Amino acid sequence: MVRIGIIGCGYWGPNLVRNFAETTGVAVAAVTDLRPERLDLIRRRYPSIKTTTDHREVIDDPGIDAIAIATPVSTHFTLAMQALAAGKHVLVEKPMAATSRQAEQLIEEAERRRVVLMVDHTFVYTGAVRKMKELIDADQLGRIYYYDSVRVNLGLFQHDVNVLWDLAVHDLSILGHVLPVQPCAVSATGISHVPGGPENIAYLTLFFEQNLIAHIHVNWLAPAKVRRTLIGGSRKMIIYDDVEPSEKVKVYDKGISINNGTDGLYKMLISYRAGDMWAPQLDITEALRTEAEHFVQCIERGATPITSGRAGLEVVRVLEAGARSLKKRGRLVELTPPSVACSRAKIAGIG
Amino acid sequence: MVRIGIIGCGYWGPNLVRNFAETTGVAVAAVTDLRPERLDLIRRRYPSIKTTTDHREVIDDPGIDAIAIATPVSTHFTLAMQALAAGKHVLVEKPMAATSRQAEQLIEEAERRRVVLMVDHTFVYTGAVRKMKELIDADQLGRIYYYDSVRVNLGLFQHDVNVLWDLAVHDLSILGHVLPVQPCAVSATGISHVPGGPENIAYLTLFFEQNLIAHIHVNWLAPAKVRRTLIGGSRKMIIYDDVEPSEKVKVYDKGISINNGTDGLYKMLISYRAGDMWAPQLDITEALRTEAEHFVQCIERGATPITSGRAGLEVVRVLEAGARSLKKRGRLVELTPPSVACSRAKIAGIG
Amino acid sequence: MVRIGIIGCGYWGPNLVRNFAETTGVAVAAVTDLRPERLDLIRRRYPSIKTTTDHREVIDDPGIDAIAIATPVSTHFTLAMQALAAGKHVLVEKPMAATSRQAEQLIEEAERRRVVLMVDHTFVYTGAVRKMKELIDADQLGRIYYYDSVRVNLGLFQHDVNVLWDLAVHDLSILGHVLPVQPCAVSATGISHVPGGPENIAYLTLFFEQNLIAHIHVNWLAPAKVRRTLIGGSRKMIIYDDVEPSEKVKVYDKGISINNGTDGLYKMLISYRAGDMWAPQLDITEALRTEAEHFVQCIERGATPITSGRAGLEVVRVLEAGARSLKKRGRLVELTPPSVACSRAKIAGIG
Amino acid sequence: MVRIGIIGCGYWGPNLVRNFAETTGVAVAAVTDLRPERLDLIRRRYPSIKTTTDHREVIDDPGIDAIAIATPVSTHFTLAMQALAAGKHVLVEKPMAATSRQAEQLIEEAERRRVVLMVDHTFVYTGAVRKMKELIDADQLGRIYYYDSVRVNLGLFQHDVNVLWDLAVHDLSILGHVLPVQPCAVSATGISHVPGGPENIAYLTLFFEQNLIAHIHVNWLAPAKVRRTLIGGSRKMIIYDDVEPSEKVKVYDKGISINNGTDGLYKMLISYRAGDMWAPQLDITEALRTEAEHFVQCIERGATPITSGRAGLEVVRVLEAGARSLKKRGRLVELTPPSVACSRAKIAGIG
Repeated sequence: MVRIGIIGCGYWGPNLVRNFAETTGVAVAAVTDLRPERLDLIRRRYPSIKTTTDHREVIDDPGIDAIAIATPVSTHFTLAMQALAAGKHVLVEKPMAATSRQAEQLIEEAERRRVVLMVDHTFVYTGAVRKMKELIDADQLGRIYYYDSVRVNLGLFQHDVNVLWDLAVHDLSILGHVLPVQPCAVSATGISHVPGGPENIAYLTLFFEQNLIAHIHVNWLAPAKVRRTLIGGSRKMIIYDDVEPSEKVKVYDKGISINNGTDGLYKMLISYRAGDMWAPQLDITEALRTEAEHFVQCIERGATPITSGRAGLEVVRVLEAGARSLKKRGRLVELTPPSVACSRAKIAGIG
Repeated sequence: MVRIGIIGCGYWGPNLVRNFAETTGVAVAAVTDLRPERLDLIRRRYPSIKTTTDHREVIDDPGIDAIAIATPVSTHFTLAMQALAAGKHVLVEKPMAATSRQAEQLIEEAERRRVVLMVDHTFVYTGAVRKMKELIDADQLGRIYYYDSVRVNLGLFQHDVNVLWDLAVHDLSILGHVLPVQPCAVSATGISHVPGGPENIAYLTLFFEQNLIAHIHVNWLAPAKVRRTLIGGSRKMIIYDDVEPSEKVKVYDKGISINNGTDGLYKMLISYRAGDMWAPQLDITEALRTEAEHFVQCIERGATPITSGRAGLEVVRVLEAGARSLKKRGRLVELTPPSVACSRAKIAGIG
Repeated sequence: MVRIGIIGCGYWGPNLVRNFAETTGVAVAAVTDLRPERLDLIRRRYPSIKTTTDHREVIDDPGIDAIAIATPVSTHFTLAMQALAAGKHVLVEKPMAATSRQAEQLIEEAERRRVVLMVDHTFVYTGAVRKMKELIDADQLGRIYYYDSVRVNLGLFQHDVNVLWDLAVHDLSILGHVLPVQPCAVSATGISHVPGGPENIAYLTLFFEQNLIAHIHVNWLAPAKVRRTLIGGSRKMIIYDDVEPSEKVKVYDKGISINNGTDGLYKMLISYRAGDMWAPQLDITEALRTEAEHFVQCIERGATPITSGRAGLEVVRVLEAGARSLKKRGRLVELTPPSVACSRAKIAGIG
Repeated sequence: MVRIGIIGCGYWGPNLVRNFAETTGVAVAAVTDLRPERLDLIRRRYPSIKTTTDHREVIDDPGIDAIAIATPVSTHFTLAMQALAAGKHVLVEKPMAATSRQAEQLIEEAERRRVVLMVDHTFVYTGAVRKMKELIDADQLGRIYYYDSVRVNLGLFQHDVNVLWDLAVHDLSILGHVLPVQPCAVSATGISHVPGGPENIAYLTLFFEQNLIAHIHVNWLAPAKVRRTLIGGSRKMIIYDDVEPSEKVKVYDKGISINNGTDGLYKMLISYRAGDMWAPQLDITEALRTEAEHFVQCIERGATPITSGRAGLEVVRVLEAGARSLKKRGRLVELTPPSVACSRAKIAGIG
């Protein structure tokens, strides 16, 4: 039985409490938040869980094996480092840390302590993303041509981070998971409509060494909620629409074929192909439940999580580069040194 | 009665023939195309229209008052210049010319000859765009915050121009018409999936001197047809979805209010507003019909068209800058000298 | 403070517990169910609520003021009658009872005891239905021409009641609330695909003394979830689509005008009108919360609920008539005596 | 070369002219209409086609092999009978005739004259309906449980026929084509909102000897255009949405399985199945083109058309029965004698 303590009980924390409370093999031992009224809520629903406003009580509790951190990003590094230093396994909200240097230090500390460090890239555990990963790994799409995502709505304007850190983080975690390659440079543009505030609209292009492009459009000031991703491949193409109540992933047997023309070196013939559309059935288990179970399994087996610290670092590195490019209105920012080597351990289980 | 000759009878030419043939006050006198089989088609449907494979016959015909040019963009300049030099009024397909220098020369020639020079920015004449223009002019949206368009489908790969010249040209003509200001710089990214071919996916950001951003996403290799534009304003926001069979323009009473906080210089309070949605009825007259009538009216009254040569030039200048930025993977390219002064004559009639 | 006891803790009971637990002015005193494991769930979440497998303990408890009944329909009469006889206010699930005779007896008993009898017609308390009621009451739609509803999905096949009792009950409660008149006859058709089982597809037409028709289509065996109601009026028409995440109610300024022709007695001229569409913002408060508050207010003020026993009776009478017509494959069944007189007290508050 | 004359040049006639004009193996020899201005239109577009206001000139023309009739339904019988009597092959608009007796007489006359009699059930020739027919014939859906169609919009109110004759005729032609069995009785309800006018809203239930039900909902007074058909089978279910620009036919691997319980005679166990959705690519050839080619082939080969006179008769018989049931507000009307024996000849070619 893994005993877990949860730090931070704002918007997301209660979801962690509920999912860990309902997962076999794990018990929620303690919840901490600076605001007593947030703890009142937990006590009413879960009278057996210990609550405290002092997070050190939780981190230092020798009866606790793991810590989940759901606090503002600026506090992730300090809290996670304390927990790792105390020998706890750590699940930290995304983005993993405020800088890539911090993320690297957390990875190093976790490796030194031989504990599990996992980032809460929740979307990676949805049935939709798992199905897309499965299709791409099985080479159903052929060579990947592009990844394009729109994630906009009338959302809460953050005061401390721009919209990339708030919304594009989801897309970066998904594309980092499903694409077989890592970006090498970015270009970003955007705007802030609140004087002195961070960008509330941003466009982020990711370049790759391969002939592939990715683009993410995020916006806190849109009149409707759009969550639509297009993935184009040489064999098939996907539309993943997370707003749809069903058939979220549609696979199109559409595309082009490029043939060398017969009468010269440079002539290219393009033929167009349009076929059936297919919407595979998706696992509708709540993503956070699947993720909670995966975290417990990784602790029990000493395995590397699918959304490991390295996956979290890669996302933070792109967000940092995006912020630099934003300031220079689209100037290319290279991701050097080349992104973390993709020696990600294969994990049995979901994927 | 205006007598018009039409040069080019490929995909778009027959639409010009049909609309001018059915418009009062104008007669289609002649159609020319290099391919005799295209002319056969016209002759079968319109036996009274003269056809010829020699465009000079049409341009030099003293009985013809106006020329409409629907040929590949590389030929626009030469053909339009010949027609203007012959004293004809000219309607030219978009993009108006292959370079802004060419566009400027056409404008100068038309002014010198005192003839009408109009660019076939068809979307400007749709009921949807005219309604959006009307709403923005009446200040229904308040200050414009952003303009964001997605125009993707599985489309014909062009060999000579990139996807911006083929698809973004529509968005640039629309935003040039409905927005009260002109862009001052662009950043563009994109990719070609056909070796040696022009970019088939592109992302174009437009910067303005005002606190406004525009972005256009175009793609010839998408699994579904998307034609969706978001326009955000301080009072209201629009979603314009051209794929919808009805209610193409939706106006949302949604947004944010930014207030200075009471207790300090830097505090900003943002409040969120969500109200009704409203889809105004739109004029469903075919856009090209409205445009044909406008062209005839401008000729008769000596008026400047809504989609004048200057409007066409502005679009070409952005396309040129976009192409330069694309080559430098997002590097900012300024539109200097500042975009054509917006002394566009007000025209009674549509708009 | 109203103290409530809840009988039945299957699918819906926990929602009643949660909403009454979170409503001011009411406390959940006890929950009862025949299945101990259902009570375990409640105890874990709400340790302070008393649980028992013996419903008589709850009904006989003098400290309890009101009883909510969420058990199978065949038990509604006995349980509600026991509760009323014990002087409790009663909220009973829909359909209110298995026969109209039972429903009438419950109404009589509640009147004799001077307690509140309310039926849980939840949809009546949604923002969407309240808005439609408001629009119709304000004569925005003009004379009502028709009410047409489709409510289909792949649903749980009931063994004891047909699909009308399970699904059409929602539509009947809504139309009984929003329409100003009562039906006078019905015709129903349907089919069972399970040998010996009740109808799993049914079509129900309601006739009125006025020139109005209503139709309800329900189906447990449909490949997708459809929840769409059309309401046609002489001035405006509504599409209410409950599957939409937003803009559930759309009001169309469309319709016909019927004029007497000028040249004869029998000539009718019909002109068609198409105007704007408008989607009013809706209150998104959970319907059951609004309903729980209304139940408490009615108890405190001695008022008649919006979804009173009489409203419940009217629904049951139509369901009974529908079942009779179903057996005769569409034969008209009149609702005699004329439906319950509509002397429903006006209630301040929601509506 | 088949030479065809077309009688009637209102809304649909010009479509017949265009499609026959563009079909190989057939020439449009003459067009007739009582209104000279309708003929002017044809002459302008097709100067080589002979036009006349006297339909006898066309019927009696020995150079004409076939007649297409696109006039009001009340004239179908007389015109078709004249054409058949003159030895012409006949294509007649749907509904085939105003009464089933008339339809039977036309069938007899065509058989006696050994000419082709075909009814213009256009939808049968669409890619969508042909694909559904193919899926059902290949037993992909298993046993058919139900056929449910909604066909509503703000449509032209007819003065002489009710909405069943105008709109349900499409659904009846489709279901008659794709379903393997014929209905044996109907129940219909409806209403007229124009004093003295025919019903503008109608609901039609079709009963079968098999355990199958069909229902058609048609309405001229709806705020939006809906064209949605559900077909439920024991293996798969279809949603056919003709308003969708693409993926009009969606096949769902969803349904129930009914098993006898193990412990008694009457227990039934129902299990639910939800799987993938699949949208097959559809032939997008214009239906009327496919139909025109089929008519010509039937003439050349002496074959029976897919939409033969018998298919047309079956539709008329259901419409007649529906009208009788409408007058009796849902009373069951049996189709006796049992519907036309389904010895429809198999035709090579489309289907």
